[in-house]
Amino acid sequence: MPLTPEQEAEIKALRANPRPTLRAVSEGMEKHLYVAHEVLDHGFIRVIDYMGDDAAICQAARVSYGKGTKSVQNDKGLIRYLMRHWHSTPFEMCEIKLHVKLPVFVARQWIRHRTANVNEYSARYSILDREFYIPAPEQLAAQSVINNQGRGEALSEAEAARVLDILKSDAAQCYDHYQEMISDDGKQGLARELARMNLPANIYTQWYWKVDLHNLFHFLRLRADAHAQYEIRVYAEAIARVVADWVPAAFGAFEDYRMGGVTLSAQAIDCVRRMLKGEKVTAENSGMNAREWREFEGVLNGSA
Amino acid sequence: MPLTPEQEAEIKALRANPRPTLRAVSEGMEKHLYVAHEVLDHGFIRVIDYMGDDAAICQAARVSYGKGTKSVQNDKGLIRYLMRHWHSTPFEMCEIKLHVKLPVFVARQWIRHRTANVNEYSARYSILDREFYIPAPEQLAAQSVINNQGRGEALSEAEAARVLDILKSDAAQCYDHYQEMISDDGKQGLARELARMNLPANIYTQWYWKVDLHNLFHFLRLRADAHAQYEIRVYAEAIARVVADWVPAAFGAFEDYRMGGVTLSAQAIDCVRRMLKGEKVTAENSGMNAREWREFEGVLNGSA
Amino acid sequence: MPLTPEQEAEIKALRANPRPTLRAVSEGMEKHLYVAHEVLDHGFIRVIDYMGDDAAICQAARVSYGKGTKSVQNDKGLIRYLMRHWHSTPFEMCEIKLHVKLPVFVARQWIRHRTANVNEYSARYSILDREFYIPAPEQLAAQSVINNQGRGEALSEAEAARVLDILKSDAAQCYDHYQEMISDDGKQGLARELARMNLPANIYTQWYWKVDLHNLFHFLRLRADAHAQYEIRVYAEAIARVVADWVPAAFGAFEDYRMGGVTLSAQAIDCVRRMLKGEKVTAENSGMNAREWREFEGVLNGSA
Amino acid sequence: MPLTPEQEAEIKALRANPRPTLRAVSEGMEKHLYVAHEVLDHGFIRVIDYMGDDAAICQAARVSYGKGTKSVQNDKGLIRYLMRHWHSTPFEMCEIKLHVKLPVFVARQWIRHRTANVNEYSARYSILDREFYIPAPEQLAAQSVINNQGRGEALSEAEAARVLDILKSDAAQCYDHYQEMISDDGKQGLARELARMNLPANIYTQWYWKVDLHNLFHFLRLRADAHAQYEIRVYAEAIARVVADWVPAAFGAFEDYRMGGVTLSAQAIDCVRRMLKGEKVTAENSGMNAREWREFEGVLNGSA
Repeated sequence: MPLTPEQEAEIKALRANPRPTLRAVSEGMEKHLYVAHEVLDHGFIRVIDYMGDDAAICQAARVSYGKGTKSVQNDKGLIRYLMRHWHSTPFEMCEIKLHVKLPVFVARQWIRHRTANVNEYSARYSILDREFYIPAPEQLAAQSVINNQGRGEALSEAEAARVLDILKSDAAQCYDHYQEMISDDGKQGLARELARMNLPANIYTQWYWKVDLHNLFHFLRLRADAHAQYEIRVYAEAIARVVADWVPAAFGAFEDYRMGGVTLSAQAIDCVRRMLKGEKVTAENSGMNAREWREFEGVLNGSA
Repeated sequence: MPLTPEQEAEIKALRANPRPTLRAVSEGMEKHLYVAHEVLDHGFIRVIDYMGDDAAICQAARVSYGKGTKSVQNDKGLIRYLMRHWHSTPFEMCEIKLHVKLPVFVARQWIRHRTANVNEYSARYSILDREFYIPAPEQLAAQSVINNQGRGEALSEAEAARVLDILKSDAAQCYDHYQEMISDDGKQGLARELARMNLPANIYTQWYWKVDLHNLFHFLRLRADAHAQYEIRVYAEAIARVVADWVPAAFGAFEDYRMGGVTLSAQAIDCVRRMLKGEKVTAENSGMNAREWREFEGVLNGSA
Repeated sequence: MPLTPEQEAEIKALRANPRPTLRAVSEGMEKHLYVAHEVLDHGFIRVIDYMGDDAAICQAARVSYGKGTKSVQNDKGLIRYLMRHWHSTPFEMCEIKLHVKLPVFVARQWIRHRTANVNEYSARYSILDREFYIPAPEQLAAQSVINNQGRGEALSEAEAARVLDILKSDAAQCYDHYQEMISDDGKQGLARELARMNLPANIYTQWYWKVDLHNLFHFLRLRADAHAQYEIRVYAEAIARVVADWVPAAFGAFEDYRMGGVTLSAQAIDCVRRMLKGEKVTAENSGMNAREWREFEGVLNGSA
Repeated sequence: MPLTPEQEAEIKALRANPRPTLRAVSEGMEKHLYVAHEVLDHGFIRVIDYMGDDAAICQAARVSYGKGTKSVQNDKGLIRYLMRHWHSTPFEMCEIKLHVKLPVFVARQWIRHRTANVNEYSARYSILDREFYIPAPEQLAAQSVINNQGRGEALSEAEAARVLDILKSDAAQCYDHYQEMISDDGKQGLARELARMNLPANIYTQWYWKVDLHNLFHFLRLRADAHAQYEIRVYAEAIARVVADWVPAAFGAFEDYRMGGVTLSAQAIDCVRRMLKGEKVTAENSGMNAREWREFEGVLNGSA
C-alpha cells in the first residue's frame, strides 16, 4: 500500500476545496487531481497540476494557421491532422505535472527523456524510506534468447523463490547497514550523501516530473511499447489512462497514429505495393535483410 | 489601439465564467487572464494560461530536499535561498502561456530564447494585417558612439520627421504591393508564402509563447535590462509586471538577486576587498583592463 | 554570385593547410570543408566544422549495448537497426557546424528548430548588405487551391513579370532608404537597430548553425519534404548532399526509414492487412475520414 | 587501476596514427585524446572527440557582430567581453565528447544536466563489471551540522573502519548474488534487466557524454564548486584541467568571471557602496536576513 493514512487525509483535504478559475478546465482531469494511482508494489503516479485541454491545442494551432482555417471542420479533425502531419508545437501547449514514486532503476531509464522538468527527493539531505521493489513471482523471467535486451519465459517456481529470497534479504541487509552507518546514536554518523551508496537499485525514490503533451506522447510511445521493460511500462500505462481522460481527442489521435500506427521503410512500402498488385514477394526479392523481413512479416500479420 | 470591439467582447466573455478547479490558483494572476496589456503602437501581451504559484515552487523544492527541510522557516525564505544558490529546477515547476502581438524584428530577437514553446501566425496560410510599428518620435535615436550595439542621443526634430516619413510611406507601399500580388481578382494571385517576402520587418505578427518561470526569468534578465533594445524591453517590462502579481515571492527574489544584483569577477571582488581594507586601488593596480575597470567603476557608483 | 574574390581566396587559404589530428576523420566530409555550395540567387551553405563519422555512431551505441553486441554483424547493420527502432542517442554523437547565407523569411522558418546552436549576423551592430532574394520566374506560383498552405500552378508570364518588378523595386527603394536613414554624412544617422525595420523579408542574413546529426535528420525530414516551401527545401537538399558524403551509412538508413518511409495509422495498416487477404476495402468501410482515405490512396499508389 | 593492458594497448593504437584534417585543431587538446585520466578508485574521464578552439568562439561571435567588430582588439579581449556580458551562444560553438566511468550515484547527479547527449552502458543487455567505489578512509565524513546537505568532520578511525567493512562486504555479497541470479549454468537465469536491481549505487557504470562548451562551463561551475559532493567534484576538476588545455582563453575568462567571481544581491552591492563611503554597516541595517548576512561576510573576507 503506497499511501499512509496521513497521506490519504492530505489528498482528501486537497480535493475538498475547489476554487474558481478563468483558465481552461478539463473535467476529465479534475477527477484525477492529487489521487494516487498505484503502480508496482509501493509506487504511484498522481497528477499535481495540468495546463490546457483539447481546445487549447486547436487554439494554438489556429494562431499558427491564422484566420484561414475554415476548411478544417472541427477540433477533432484538426487534432488528427496535426498528429498525422507531425505538427508538434500545438501539442506542446498542454502541460502536466506528476508526482511519481518509483524504483531507482526505473528512474534511471525515465530520466533519459531530457525535455522535462524534474525535482527529485534528495538523499544527500534526507533519509530514504525502507521500501524496495520486489517483483511479483510471475514477473520473474529469464533473459530472452531472441531479443538480447528483454525477458523470455517465466522462471520455474523454485528458481523464482530463490531469486525473491535473495532480493528481499539483500535489500533488508543493505538498508539495515544504511541506517546503522548514518546513525548518530553514540557515534558521529556517516554523511547521508555517502551512506546512500550502499542502497540497491530497487529502493524507491520520488520526484515531481513536469512535461508538455508532445514530449509526454513521445515518452508514452517508447515506454508503453511492448518492448519496454515491464517495470517502466506499467508507469507509462497508468499515465496513459490519465491522459485519455485529460485530452480525449489528442489521445485518440495518438493511439491511431503513434501507438497503433506503423512505420514502413522505403523497401517495405514498395513490397506492400507489389503485393497489392498480385506479385509474389519473398525475403529474397524484397530488398530487405533477414531481420528486416522478419519484422516486416510481423507487421503484416499483426504480431508486431 | 491593438484590440477591435469584437476582440474586447471576446475577452469579456472569456472572463465572465469562472469554473471550479482543484489546482493551485494565483489570485494575482486570475485578474490578468485574457486581458490585453498594450505595448508599442499596435502590440500587446496577454496571459492565456498559467500553472503554479509561489507555493508550488516550495512544494517541488521540498521533494528535492525531502522531509528534512524544517530549518528553512518559510516559503519566502526558501525561495530566496533557491534563487541565491542557483537551484533552478523548482522555478521550472511554474509555467505561463502568453499571446503576444509584436513587430517581426522584435520576434526575431525573442525567438533566440530556445527553451520555450511557440506557435506563430502563419503567413504561408493567412494574410497578415496592415499594421506596422512606427516609433514614437522620441524613440528615434542615433547610433551610439560608446556602445556599438545601441542607441545614442535622440534625433533632431527635422531628422526624426524625415525618418518617420520614410518608415510610414515604405510600409504603406510594400503592403499595397503585397495585397496586389496576392489578389486573385481577375488574376491568379501570388502564393502567400512568396508575397510575404515583400513586407518589412516592422510589420506585426502574433504568437502563443509558453515558457517555464526559470527560463522566463532568464528572458527578463536579458531583455528587461537597460542594454536591451527598447522595443523588446517594453514587452519584457509588461511581462514582469504580470509576473510580480503571479508569484510575488519569486519575483521579489528575482529582483534582488538577478535584476538588481551584480556579478563581480575574481579581480573585481579582490579590488573590493582591498578597498574595504583601506587600500587605494586604481585602474593600474586593479588587474583589470580599461574596459573592465570602467564597468567596475559603474557598478560601484551605481550607474551600471 | 554569392562569393567575392576575397572570400574565394580565403576559402582557398583555409583549405591549403591540413593539420594532423588524432580525431575521427571523414574523408567524404573533408572535401566539403569551407567550400560554399550555392543556394538560391545569393545564398550558400558551407561546412565550417564537424565531429564524428559512421563509426562514431556505432561506438556510442556499443557503450549503450555494452559488450554483448556480437549479434549485430557490422556497423551498417547496427546503424539501420538503430534508425528502425528510433534509438536516437547514438546519432546525437555526431555534430556539424554550417555557415549559411539565407533570406530572412527562410531564416524565420529555420529557427523553429530549437535544438541547435545559432550565431546570427547582428543588424544592431553592423550594416546589412544590399542583397535580396528575387525568385526565378518559374518559381512564381499561385496560392494552392488544394493545400491551403502551399503553391499551385505557375503564374502567367505577364503576371510573373509584374511581381518581379514589384519585388525588385520595393527592395531597392527600401534599401536606399535604409542607407539614407543610417547615413551620418551631414546628419546624426538613425541607430542601426531601428533602421533595419525598413528592410523587407527577402533581404539576406547569415548565421553559424551547429546541430547534432539526429536533430539534423529531423530538420531534413521536414524541410527536404515535398510539402516544405521551395526556398527552404533547396537549403535542406544542399545539406543532405553533404551529409551523404559525411556519414554514408547513417544517411542511407535515414533515406530508407525516414525520407522514403511512410507512417500508417492503425486504421491504414488494418486496411492493408484486409486488402492483402483479398478483401475489397473502400473509403466507406476503411474506418478513415475522406481526407485520411485520400492520403492513404496516395501512399499506396506511390504519389504521396 | 581503471584500465586493463588491452585497453592501454587500444589507446596507444588510437594515438599512433594522426590523420590530416582541414578543421580547427587545438594542439593542447590533441595530447589528451583517448588518454584516460584516473578519477576515484576505478573511474576515469577521457576525451574521445572535440570540435573548435578559442578562435572558433570569436569567429562565431563575429558573425553575430558582423564586420563592425573592429573595436574589440583581440580574441582574448572579445572572449572576456562575451563571458562578462553573458553572451553564451559563441561558447556553444565548441563541443566535447567524453568517455566517463563513474559510480551510479554520481551518474544520477550528473544526468540532471539535461543539455547534453548521453549513451550509457546498458545493464539490460550486458553484465556489469565487479567494480565498486569504496571511499578512501579520509573521505569518510559525518553529516554536516551547518550545511544540511553536505559533509562535516572526518569519522574517527574506528568508525571509518566499520563503514568500510560494511561497504565492501555488502557490495561483494550483492554482486555475488547478481552473478548467481543471472547464471544460466544448470538453470534458466534471471533476465539482466531484473537482476541489476540488486546492485548498490556505488557500482561503476560508463557512458559517452557530449556537451557544448557553454553548458560544460555551467556544469563545471556547479560541480567543481566547493559545495558539490566530493565524488562528482573530482570528475569536474579532471575535466576542468582538460578544458584549460583545450580553450585556454575561454577557460581563463570562465575562471575569472564564473568560478572566481561572485554574485551580489541588490542589498549586498548597496552595503558595499555604503561601506566604501565609510558607513558602518551591520547585519541589522543591511537589509539582509541572518543567513544572507553570514554568506555576505563570507564573500567579503574571502572564505566563501
